[in-house]
Amino acid sequence: MTSVRVDEIVARFGGELIGDGARSIVQVATLDHAGADEISFLANPKYRERLGYTRAGAVILGRQAAADCPVTCIVCDQPYLYFARVSQWLNPRSRSAPLRHPTAAIEAELPASVSVGAGASIGKGCVIGERVEIGPGCVIGAGSCIGDDTQLYANVTVYPGSVAGRRVIIHAGAVIGADGFGFAREADGSWLKIPQIGRVVIGDDVEIGANTTIDRGALDDTVIEDGVKLDNQIQVGHNVRIGAHSALAGCVGIAGSATIGQRCTVGGGAVILGHVTLAADVNVSAGTLVAKSINRAGTYTGTVPFLEHANWLKNFSQLRHLEALADKIRALEAQVAHMVRVAEPEKKS
Amino acid sequence: MTSVRVDEIVARFGGELIGDGARSIVQVATLDHAGADEISFLANPKYRERLGYTRAGAVILGRQAAADCPVTCIVCDQPYLYFARVSQWLNPRSRSAPLRHPTAAIEAELPASVSVGAGASIGKGCVIGERVEIGPGCVIGAGSCIGDDTQLYANVTVYPGSVAGRRVIIHAGAVIGADGFGFAREADGSWLKIPQIGRVVIGDDVEIGANTTIDRGALDDTVIEDGVKLDNQIQVGHNVRIGAHSALAGCVGIAGSATIGQRCTVGGGAVILGHVTLAADVNVSAGTLVAKSINRAGTYTGTVPFLEHANWLKNFSQLRHLEALADKIRALEAQVAHMVRVAEPEKKS
Amino acid sequence: MTSVRVDEIVARFGGELIGDGARSIVQVATLDHAGADEISFLANPKYRERLGYTRAGAVILGRQAAADCPVTCIVCDQPYLYFARVSQWLNPRSRSAPLRHPTAAIEAELPASVSVGAGASIGKGCVIGERVEIGPGCVIGAGSCIGDDTQLYANVTVYPGSVAGRRVIIHAGAVIGADGFGFAREADGSWLKIPQIGRVVIGDDVEIGANTTIDRGALDDTVIEDGVKLDNQIQVGHNVRIGAHSALAGCVGIAGSATIGQRCTVGGGAVILGHVTLAADVNVSAGTLVAKSINRAGTYTGTVPFLEHANWLKNFSQLRHLEALADKIRALEAQVAHMVRVAEPEKKS
Repeated sequence: MTSVRVDEIVARFGGELIGDGARSIVQVATLDHAGADEISFLANPKYRERLGYTRAGAVILGRQAAADCPVTCIVCDQPYLYFARVSQWLNPRSRSAPLRHPTAAIEAELPASVSVGAGASIGKGCVIGERVEIGPGCVIGAGSCIGDDTQLYANVTVYPGSVAGRRVIIHAGAVIGADGFGFAREADGSWLKIPQIGRVVIGDDVEIGANTTIDRGALDDTVIEDGVKLDNQIQVGHNVRIGAHSALAGCVGIAGSATIGQRCTVGGGAVILGHVTLAADVNVSAGTLVAKSINRAGTYTGTVPFLEHANWLKNFSQLRHLEALADKIRALEAQVAHMVRVAEPEKKS
Repeated sequence: MTSVRVDEIVARFGGELIGDGARSIVQVATLDHAGADEISFLANPKYRERLGYTRAGAVILGRQAAADCPVTCIVCDQPYLYFARVSQWLNPRSRSAPLRHPTAAIEAELPASVSVGAGASIGKGCVIGERVEIGPGCVIGAGSCIGDDTQLYANVTVYPGSVAGRRVIIHAGAVIGADGFGFAREADGSWLKIPQIGRVVIGDDVEIGANTTIDRGALDDTVIEDGVKLDNQIQVGHNVRIGAHSALAGCVGIAGSATIGQRCTVGGGAVILGHVTLAADVNVSAGTLVAKSINRAGTYTGTVPFLEHANWLKNFSQLRHLEALADKIRALEAQVAHMVRVAEPEKKS
Repeated sequence: MTSVRVDEIVARFGGELIGDGARSIVQVATLDHAGADEISFLANPKYRERLGYTRAGAVILGRQAAADCPVTCIVCDQPYLYFARVSQWLNPRSRSAPLRHPTAAIEAELPASVSVGAGASIGKGCVIGERVEIGPGCVIGAGSCIGDDTQLYANVTVYPGSVAGRRVIIHAGAVIGADGFGFAREADGSWLKIPQIGRVVIGDDVEIGANTTIDRGALDDTVIEDGVKLDNQIQVGHNVRIGAHSALAGCVGIAGSATIGQRCTVGGGAVILGHVTLAADVNVSAGTLVAKSINRAGTYTGTVPFLEHANWLKNFSQLRHLEALADKIRALEAQVAHMVRVAEPEKKS
């Protein structure tokens, strides 16, 4: 691990140095656990008290917290973003020399800079970019295209004919391009499969989490635009389009033909129903079911509070009677209005 | 890709031809994107306007839409089902010559018609049917039985002793037969594992989505009946039974010992709790939690609408006070009734 | 399969034998399906009637049910726990002789007692304990540590530098140590990746279900304490800590930096939001979204009842108007109070 001086960090990324610029830094760490050769950050004012006892060599923070910092600090406008840049600098992607494991089954022609792990298989006609890393156990179906510098961790499956851009990261166990869930129903209730002949097309700089699945299109393609970030265990149905720089948290489900605008965020466990459209810059809260389109940027929520179980039982049983409650209120309003008229006739005349 | 004439399609599947029967068709496509040698369909009246500008060579549609169709069309009663048949005809399952990849680890005797991909492993005593395809990286545990024409995509895991029928499709990353979640609790709160000695038994014509998991039974078997369709990322607990021709959308969770009747549908992200029974022909809406049995066919829903966040905060905070609201309404009703009696005594006499 | 006598079971595990102690038992089974050489159990009084027609060779049950049992029985305080012990005795973990499959890619030094399945790969510098079993297709990243007697089923991925204790069971398709979902947002809405440099540290006696994912920490570690049981398809975010002997059912999502106390249970499909803390002995019901910390042991629920769809439509549309309903009630209360004062002034004086 290389070391850098705090003043080198400031020279590279800007900000104002307060304290010892010659201090040597080897890694990033939390305020709680950073040691003398590590740099930490304070982005959330809630954790400001932790500054008091940090042993970090330096801290990245905003102007208003600088006075409280007992150690060397870098003052900047966006401490978290600044920290991300420093961490990327200190933790570059590790690259070993390109490897072709002897147990890999490679049927396509690959650039010399490509690495293929043990037991991976690459089908006929695949077009693989420079410096692509294919992890152990990955299976890349015939005719797929993968752009430069893309990295597939272990045991990823890419179905035939899929397309991924440059600098894409796909985590272990992800499945790209499986058949969408498309069936026509016979009169007897059984299902006739609709061949799924579209593709999955993934843009540049996309990250796809572990065990996430993205289905191929039924007829047209499923499209993940540039810069989209998908967490683990997400399901993306056929013909979905996810707009550039949208970020979806774990366990989200996106049903077929939904369209997510650019720069949207979707919280964990949320479900977006089929054929729904989300405008750009929509934020969907965790656990929310989106059953109809959202045409305006903003934050949308549809979850219920939790309660102690006994309390929940009493309160939530009323949900079966909300219409009746509303009816009773209407009836009371009518009665009371009538009584007011009867009791105080002079006011009306 | 072979081409067929529109009149050949009609000769094979019926319906009424209007227009140029000699037109040659090579593929199916959407109304928006179909070209002159592709056939499209109109099933949902909502998309009827798209007929106006389609460049499809032919369109499959219902009687009432035929007048609006500017190109050759096939008129039939169930356009979507008809389209499915045509698409299956134009897109038959591709089969290469049976392959035994040299890196596969095969400990069972297999018919000559079976294909085994790179790095797959097949345990001792497995009984594999004719024309079965085992994708790269699949692991089939000892003593499993797989019926004729079944297809496993890449990286599927089948635990020992599992059973799958004929023409089953299992997508990448699915796990069949892992241990159910069965533990007895010790006095100190720790958990003692219950050995899971049942099997998974899957019928004919079942499709299982990518990264879906089906646990083996604790004592008896977990059973997936004929024609069931499971989307991606579904969890099926131990001793569940799913009735024939039921279809479950992505991210559904079925807890242990639940029983789903025949021809049920379950929407995405729904959760069916343990030991619950669903009658035949029950439709559970997406995102619904089914906490008790449903004894009658029909559609059942239990989800909340989403709102803009500020609006949600005001409205949904009332959920903690529903019982109190109901109490207030009862009190008001009593007071008003009393006042009515006092104010209008003659009416009561 | 070995056979044991009922009186041997009682000698080993205690309880009171009523009936034929010489009866020979080879396996456990349900009351419905047990045969003459199988032992069953009755733990839930709801199933007591099944005793009447069981053909089991023997039944494990509580004192109060003994009189109804038509066959040999073992009376004990905790029938389910007793049954678990008997089942573990009759179904010991099967171990074949240690195997190194010739297609495995092993770059670390392993004890002779370790088994490695076909196509598995083990990276440099891994420290693997005695009698560890690595299933076919598993990928263990460089520098990982795995304790004695731990078992990985097929196609498990362990990222570099992960740590697992002794007697851990990891089911097929699980992914341990993928990057957490950590990004800083640029001014233009795009995302800058935060390198995820923490580890996953798993204690002893943990079980991890099929296709479950546990992310590595961002800076500090993600920690799964001793005896934790995780079902299938669970997502555990970065820097989560799950306390000893907690059990989480299928499809649960735990967002980043959440802390689950000891001996908690979380029902299927529940979601725990980021940075939330659950005290020890908290039970979260299935399907519940936990959006804030829970400081006291107990059972907590936040789900809505399902209704027939038409009924749901009428009732649940009121959820958008709860605040308005509450306002109307307040207005009615004021009006009625006023009328009472006007109508019955003498009572007030």
